[in-house]
Amino acid sequence: MITALRFDEGRLEVLDQTLLPDEERWIELDSATAAADAIRRLAVRGAPMIGITAAYALALEDPARFAAAAAELRDARPTAVNLAWAVDRMLAAGPERALAEAHAIHDEQEGANAAIGRHGADLLAGAQRVLTHCNTGTLACGAGGGTALAVVAELAARGPVEVLACETRPLLQGARLTVWELARLGIPHALCVDGAAAGLIARGEIDAVVVGADRVAANGDVANKVGTYAHALAAQAAGIPFVVAVPVSTLDAGTATGADIVIEERDADEVRRVGGRLVTVEGTPVRNPAFDVTPAALVTAVVTERGVMHPVAR
Amino acid sequence: MITALRFDEGRLEVLDQTLLPDEERWIELDSATAAADAIRRLAVRGAPMIGITAAYALALEDPARFAAAAAELRDARPTAVNLAWAVDRMLAAGPERALAEAHAIHDEQEGANAAIGRHGADLLAGAQRVLTHCNTGTLACGAGGGTALAVVAELAARGPVEVLACETRPLLQGARLTVWELARLGIPHALCVDGAAAGLIARGEIDAVVVGADRVAANGDVANKVGTYAHALAAQAAGIPFVVAVPVSTLDAGTATGADIVIEERDADEVRRVGGRLVTVEGTPVRNPAFDVTPAALVTAVVTERGVMHPVAR
Repeated sequence: MITALRFDEGRLEVLDQTLLPDEERWIELDSATAAADAIRRLAVRGAPMIGITAAYALALEDPARFAAAAAELRDARPTAVNLAWAVDRMLAAGPERALAEAHAIHDEQEGANAAIGRHGADLLAGAQRVLTHCNTGTLACGAGGGTALAVVAELAARGPVEVLACETRPLLQGARLTVWELARLGIPHALCVDGAAAGLIARGEIDAVVVGADRVAANGDVANKVGTYAHALAAQAAGIPFVVAVPVSTLDAGTATGADIVIEERDADEVRRVGGRLVTVEGTPVRNPAFDVTPAALVTAVVTERGVMHPVAR
Repeated sequence: MITALRFDEGRLEVLDQTLLPDEERWIELDSATAAADAIRRLAVRGAPMIGITAAYALALEDPARFAAAAAELRDARPTAVNLAWAVDRMLAAGPERALAEAHAIHDEQEGANAAIGRHGADLLAGAQRVLTHCNTGTLACGAGGGTALAVVAELAARGPVEVLACETRPLLQGARLTVWELARLGIPHALCVDGAAAGLIARGEIDAVVVGADRVAANGDVANKVGTYAHALAAQAAGIPFVVAVPVSTLDAGTATGADIVIEERDADEVRRVGGRLVTVEGTPVRNPAFDVTPAALVTAVVTERGVMHPVAR
């Protein structure tokens, strides 16, 4: 059993995901400012997990600071829609009902995970070699198994499965977090660099690609961790399913298409350095978009806790 | 002026490419065994550079060991056709004419670079934002500007150019070597992770993709550094040119299609570690193909020193 967030006797604690897999250190977030900082530096990450953390952090705030704290949290990361969604729910609830609303958000998101896993495993029945990107497990969702990784775990509960985890540069969430979760879950797996995925898919070594998302636009375009779009292109070329697993809170009817999604550009040193070590010429200019957009035409299905959607009829 | 190999008074020396950009250290290769070791551990890399190094190393060998040394060098890396091509030429020349033949191979490969640059720049006239992968400059070719990077340099000599260099995990030849060469050449550039390329291409930020190759099959399928195929898929989806720049020695009429190309699988620790530092759970299983195959249908043109070929009519 993996847990990434706990709220007990008014204390909000999260596992610092920047330190995994080397160290399992819990840190306390005692304010919206502390939570926003943890979200920005990716100690807390994963679209659902960010939303739950923001909700609890708001519940801890002084009622007089409630609106300002909500704005601070909403601005912490632009691409994940769950953050704005959770903050909006908390604002609607107001300071008095904030704690109950945070618990409700947490419980709903946890409950969604198992349903996502079941719907996804039904859809992909028989898939044995599954490729995934970034981390979409319990670490990304607070608790409950995650989104794409919940699908993988349910497939593994039903039959033999081997997962190919892409390392997910620049921050290596696949190498650090997904591998750590799969090892804990006892699911057979291997790690590859992101650039190896397309070639392995083309060689017939993968039955399905399953990923999470940070935002799904109204037309079915999907914003997810940078590197996802190339996997979708390769899946289409090879004729294998490319499946996106998300809670409905990640669906954003207010965003028409992927072109309307703001793509966060992160710090150059994430690319220039790995684990603090410089891997290029000092001061090299960098492009570092945190996400990319996969057009709906490449998405076989979007799996949510309410069932399976096919954005583009085929 | 960049140089990566020198042969002077019977001494063969190469720049150790595993140490760049931190340190510029020359190492002497005094035998075929030393050269094969340098090729295997990637101190010497790049298809043309490997061929030139193998030729000089053979010229240094005891004539009695010539055939055995040739076999040892040929087996050092399986995917780059230039290695087998250079070894075959040396075997045909024999021990007596070995040194003259090595110089001829070196001179021919150097001369090819400038012509590749001109033909490529003619083909891509007007392209200002060029994406490349791995390292295809002088470091990959011994001297003379390289292949894909020679095209970039010639475009830069004719007008404004900005290069987006993909870092090229696992061994970061883009981050370490291409950035170092571009900085030395004074060509504006930025670095990105490999997974960012497809999304930036889709957003209209790139005019052309130019890469080298380790082997081009008779049907035009291209084996190149792992990660290349995804860039080709993205280029096709965006309607921009995907151009492969190689000396004719990289064309392999003896290999019918990409399916016949042996793809080298390299050590797991290349993926598990970056600069010696473990980035995942210790002992994690790994898939580490060094190359992938881009089907000819995705290749706009193959540029050689003899001109431009279009493997698939369009």
